[in-house]
Amino acid sequence: MRTVLNKITVIGVGLIGGSFAKGIKQLGLAKEIHGFGNNEENLKMAVDLQVVDSYSTDIQTAMQDCDLVMLAVPLGAMQPVLESLRPHIPQSAIITDAGSAKQSVIDAVTKVFGYLPENFVPGHPIAGKEQSGVAAADDQLFVDHRVILTPAESTSSAAVETVKKLWLALDARVEVMSAGFHDEVFAATSHLPHLLAFALVEMLHEHPELGNVFKYTAGGFRDFSRIASSDATMWRDISIYNHQAIAKWMTEYRDYLSGMIELVEKQDAEALYELFTTAKQARDQHIVNKQD
Amino acid sequence: MRTVLNKITVIGVGLIGGSFAKGIKQLGLAKEIHGFGNNEENLKMAVDLQVVDSYSTDIQTAMQDCDLVMLAVPLGAMQPVLESLRPHIPQSAIITDAGSAKQSVIDAVTKVFGYLPENFVPGHPIAGKEQSGVAAADDQLFVDHRVILTPAESTSSAAVETVKKLWLALDARVEVMSAGFHDEVFAATSHLPHLLAFALVEMLHEHPELGNVFKYTAGGFRDFSRIASSDATMWRDISIYNHQAIAKWMTEYRDYLSGMIELVEKQDAEALYELFTTAKQARDQHIVNKQD
Repeated sequence: MRTVLNKITVIGVGLIGGSFAKGIKQLGLAKEIHGFGNNEENLKMAVDLQVVDSYSTDIQTAMQDCDLVMLAVPLGAMQPVLESLRPHIPQSAIITDAGSAKQSVIDAVTKVFGYLPENFVPGHPIAGKEQSGVAAADDQLFVDHRVILTPAESTSSAAVETVKKLWLALDARVEVMSAGFHDEVFAATSHLPHLLAFALVEMLHEHPELGNVFKYTAGGFRDFSRIASSDATMWRDISIYNHQAIAKWMTEYRDYLSGMIELVEKQDAEALYELFTTAKQARDQHIVNKQD
Repeated sequence: MRTVLNKITVIGVGLIGGSFAKGIKQLGLAKEIHGFGNNEENLKMAVDLQVVDSYSTDIQTAMQDCDLVMLAVPLGAMQPVLESLRPHIPQSAIITDAGSAKQSVIDAVTKVFGYLPENFVPGHPIAGKEQSGVAAADDQLFVDHRVILTPAESTSSAAVETVKKLWLALDARVEVMSAGFHDEVFAATSHLPHLLAFALVEMLHEHPELGNVFKYTAGGFRDFSRIASSDATMWRDISIYNHQAIAKWMTEYRDYLSGMIELVEKQDAEALYELFTTAKQARDQHIVNKQD
């Protein structure tokens, strides 16, 4: 990519927004990488860490001459942020985001603009790490990670190409799919396991008659429940903003469990063995090539 | 411990039995560590690897002059193994085991002997690793790991002391509790998460309309589902031999999920936030001191 943009504004310079900004800045893919937020300390740190070139806490300044906006704020903040930037954003600017549920962001954009702007390219980088905040920003964060783009039929293909090239320049693997499919797949493979882990830890916690039950947990429990140490605000937002797909998959899973409970109660050794074997094969086959 | 035993026979010289034997042998806590099994190749390897001093595939030889038997076989093999050793085991020999469900082993012993021998000390070392088999035997496997003993009221306290000293000599942390409490706690903290992970992987696998759904999984799913790559035979046995407690906890969990599904459907942000926060705190607080 040698199409250098004029000014990219990153709204929300935390781990994801900061890593995006830092990578783009190092590659020189924009004349100016600008950070916007309401925490000036954080933005100053972003300049010191060479994550952004400049910052503002005033949205009008942030939008001036900007040709691409990256919304890297929590799902719950998408709509208010869009409302504040709408009067100031240049007509031709591309808007993209990094939210982990997609239909809800599309809905927020549509609500704020009154229509779905053809320059809005919904996106979801599948990356993260234990630490959060701009201090953890890492220009290598997206290397070999998937970034899902979910443009609508009306989305400008030029806008999609520009966003795609930025992610590819950061060595991410870009895939395009519908917002609906995205939300289904991530409800099933990411949101569901997180909620299941939260549920297990919380349920055990509510059983003091087991004593300090966590004392007896071994590696299996630690692995299973690690994601229950994830950020509560983020998971509240995801649960709310992708509630339909999540409720659907949780219900499906609960019903699946009911079937397994019957097998355990009936002591159906053969059916359980078959289930465990298929699951083990499926996991080993699909996961083996990923870092594990 | 300087009470050296005459002959310890380990039945089932795999990862757990082999690690126990190797540790005891290196410490010289028995004049002879003898391995018994039906796979002679495996037993030869155990001698070559200095896991045991000697072996036999004949139970009469294995039991001769033996003063402690360690049953390190799958739960499903406990009863047949006990039946074959019963006519040959010296009256005074201590029997212990390494099964991960305890009441079922107590039941098997009671059934085979017609009563619960006072020299039987049920045990469960909470240890394991990815590899299995005697080649993976490791005399440090139990260091700082818990070993739960679940003697009955009628169990000889001298027998309990002897078994305890052996585990302490291997640097394990020994705890005594009732078999019923053990089976409850491990159903909740170990068996339940394993079955939940198997269920998730298998359910997703049964939804081809999601495409290669595992392609989009990230670290969270990998951690959560790692235990679904566990041995299917072992988990079939555990599900069968601890079926009551497992069915009870699975049902409790399923009902807990129903409550969460309602919160998601109602988009009850506050209640979800509270739940996630409590779960995160509970996990962080209890797990933080363990390797994570």
